[in-house]
Amino acid sequence: MSSADALAPLPETDVTTAIAERAAALRYQDLSPDAVTVAGQCLLDWFAVTIAGAAEPLTRILVEEAREEGGNAQASLIGAGRGTLAQAALINGAASHALDYDDVHQAMKGHPTVPLVPAILALGESLGASGQDLITAFVAGYETECRIGLLVAPGHYGRGFHATATIGCFGAAAASANLLGLDAEATARALGIVGTQAAGLKSQFGTMCKPLHAGHAAASGLQAASLARRGFTSRADILEAEQGFADTHSDDFEAEAALAPAPEGFFVRGNLFKYHAACYLTHSTIEALAGLKREHDLDPALVAAVTLEVDPGHLKVCHIEEPATGLEVKFSLRHTAAMALSGIDTANPETYTDAVAGRSDLVALRRRVDVRPTGGPLTLATAALEMKDGRRLESSLDVGIPAADLAAQGARLRTKFESLVVPLLGAEASDALLADLVVPADLDDVNRLTRLLSNWTV
Amino acid sequence: MSSADALAPLPETDVTTAIAERAAALRYQDLSPDAVTVAGQCLLDWFAVTIAGAAEPLTRILVEEAREEGGNAQASLIGAGRGTLAQAALINGAASHALDYDDVHQAMKGHPTVPLVPAILALGESLGASGQDLITAFVAGYETECRIGLLVAPGHYGRGFHATATIGCFGAAAASANLLGLDAEATARALGIVGTQAAGLKSQFGTMCKPLHAGHAAASGLQAASLARRGFTSRADILEAEQGFADTHSDDFEAEAALAPAPEGFFVRGNLFKYHAACYLTHSTIEALAGLKREHDLDPALVAAVTLEVDPGHLKVCHIEEPATGLEVKFSLRHTAAMALSGIDTANPETYTDAVAGRSDLVALRRRVDVRPTGGPLTLATAALEMKDGRRLESSLDVGIPAADLAAQGARLRTKFESLVVPLLGAEASDALLADLVVPADLDDVNRLTRLLSNWTV
Repeated sequence: MSSADALAPLPETDVTTAIAERAAALRYQDLSPDAVTVAGQCLLDWFAVTIAGAAEPLTRILVEEAREEGGNAQASLIGAGRGTLAQAALINGAASHALDYDDVHQAMKGHPTVPLVPAILALGESLGASGQDLITAFVAGYETECRIGLLVAPGHYGRGFHATATIGCFGAAAASANLLGLDAEATARALGIVGTQAAGLKSQFGTMCKPLHAGHAAASGLQAASLARRGFTSRADILEAEQGFADTHSDDFEAEAALAPAPEGFFVRGNLFKYHAACYLTHSTIEALAGLKREHDLDPALVAAVTLEVDPGHLKVCHIEEPATGLEVKFSLRHTAAMALSGIDTANPETYTDAVAGRSDLVALRRRVDVRPTGGPLTLATAALEMKDGRRLESSLDVGIPAADLAAQGARLRTKFESLVVPLLGAEASDALLADLVVPADLDDVNRLTRLLSNWTV
Repeated sequence: MSSADALAPLPETDVTTAIAERAAALRYQDLSPDAVTVAGQCLLDWFAVTIAGAAEPLTRILVEEAREEGGNAQASLIGAGRGTLAQAALINGAASHALDYDDVHQAMKGHPTVPLVPAILALGESLGASGQDLITAFVAGYETECRIGLLVAPGHYGRGFHATATIGCFGAAAASANLLGLDAEATARALGIVGTQAAGLKSQFGTMCKPLHAGHAAASGLQAASLARRGFTSRADILEAEQGFADTHSDDFEAEAALAPAPEGFFVRGNLFKYHAACYLTHSTIEALAGLKREHDLDPALVAAVTLEVDPGHLKVCHIEEPATGLEVKFSLRHTAAMALSGIDTANPETYTDAVAGRSDLVALRRRVDVRPTGGPLTLATAALEMKDGRRLESSLDVGIPAADLAAQGARLRTKFESLVVPLLGAEASDALLADLVVPADLDDVNRLTRLLSNWTV
């Protein structure tokens, strides 16, 4: 257990202070090797999805706004030159969530990395922070997000709040506070300043506002830490106060869960990456079927019938039976199943075209897929194949279980990175950035990362 | 009834569209003369409280942040040169609420002007808008605030949300949309973009975060309108959507109340101004006693006993019986009663000193004041005096009743303006600004107002 987690749990009423103390106290030497490794993988993955999201229309709109506004060149706007800290946090945050291809954590019930990195990368550039500083701040923010996520679960997300925004902003504040070297008292104020601005509704899913939430969480967290450093006042118990954050945003207040030790010492160890550019609930199906195909070298033409057993939640979210467009394919269990069995690259966002939706072999195969609701976690799928030669094959896969083999996880992420980044930056620039991102804790100065991108404009 | 209010109420499910249509359609010629007059008074009062709040520590911290950030000189930061639109909205918004001396409206259950003017003044400067444009946009935002306030009352404020922030941001978006000439569809999207960022907790009252709420409401409303203009997508039914704003932020959804005609055609007619730089709940007591003193030319030394009957809510908020500091005086019914009977200027924030808290004649008089809880609205006080000569005098006053005489209201506001502004700007500059603010609808270009302030730095 790290020194940060070794702090004894405090009474319920001091949960803000307890969380602030941990975030403020965290040092690089407190981190487990696994925590450092996964944090670095989060950073690598963040660069991949952000570079890929930089050309999205919503990102371009935010860049236009920033251009009109002007400002000092404090930090990098990925793919768009430089801008202020606030612009970098907002724009890079929105870009990184634009494709919804960034990582998740089940304790936070949201996307942990996209509110954090945009804030601390911008701040780190302006401070000339090292890779170790960045990793430490990242983990401080990450643990904060998961603890606050557990504090208000399940009522918070259930009521309609988008935790990436409403919990992510606390993480961004804590991470920025750690990077600025704030003490626990100032960090608690930063949590208060950001907590009274926490906002974001799930009912905006499917609009440009969803990625905007991530950008706002990053920007408001960074601003809160900066204001706290300057002595801006706030109550220091925003989480547990009467009519504070938890009271106004959830029916639940689980202080014990929030302050309990994290599994394996750090929540970041349980980070879940996305490897398919489709709805997250299709991933267990894709992985189960891709595994069977790999293992048995299946010919998709020989598949007679596919039965998928998934949580009933899937049927409402990703069960477009006859998708006609690339976008609809992303929300079609049947079509993504056919793609996985056919060996199509589901990692590349460019794969999801209208043409692939209408490909006759895939349409024929998806019509042999039967989706059945069953119990079980949302992240689990069980796939059963009947082959024309009479064989029956079955596989269950739960994408909610963190990878046991971090080296294998790193290899998969490098493949994803190259798939997203090489088409945009070219192989040489992609390789150079990847080389620095493989062990980001070795970086003397995080400006090295953004300098490699400074010549790239979308 | 104006053409805006003449729109037939729509079904419950279209309340966002109905409100957006009214805000987008409002034109200067739709406004009643009273609405124009009161809107102008709101603007005059806003300049007074903002100039007075410009030197507050919280404002200075936000200005420091903006200085580091830099940016194009798009708009005026009152007392601090120029900055970007976002900086102007944030900083002027926070400054204007810093003293808590700005106006209120009972339908909104908050401070209506401070989220609006900072947004549309900045935008108006950048567009070279006229006084009529500004007044029209202001009323469009004002009516939006009151309608949404009624939509979610009473559960929204009761749950702990600070309506100045959470409702004010919608007003800022609607006002900015009107000034930008957006149509109803884009205005509804602007309401969606800002609605998913609506935040602000009453539990932050007493900290710098309370004024920050007003600034954030102004800045996020302005940004939402600007993003909507650029085609940023959002759902267009944020108020009534399942897990939309009302669903997540209140137990109440009163569409009929929200869409009913406003009293006398426009909610802005019912705007309530503050004339005393103390807690709002002391105002009815101060006004009742000041009225008796004026009418009977009372000598405070001859007052034997004072009985105040007020709503029990006052006892929790402003009943410090023996205040020792200027700040405590602001929350002391007994001491402010003694001040009113003694003819002391309760309008000037500078009056509330530690010396005035300890003045022996006031201390002696406050000890003859008996505060009794009774029924009745929070804005009502009944004061009964027993004089040493045996006379008994009584007065009831409800500061929640809008002024009948708008000319008299204007005169009081000019006195308040001079009391706040002359000490800071000097008489000449104060007079010049006041001259333009008496009939702001006559202004060709709102830059005329801010140019008068451009040489003043706190």
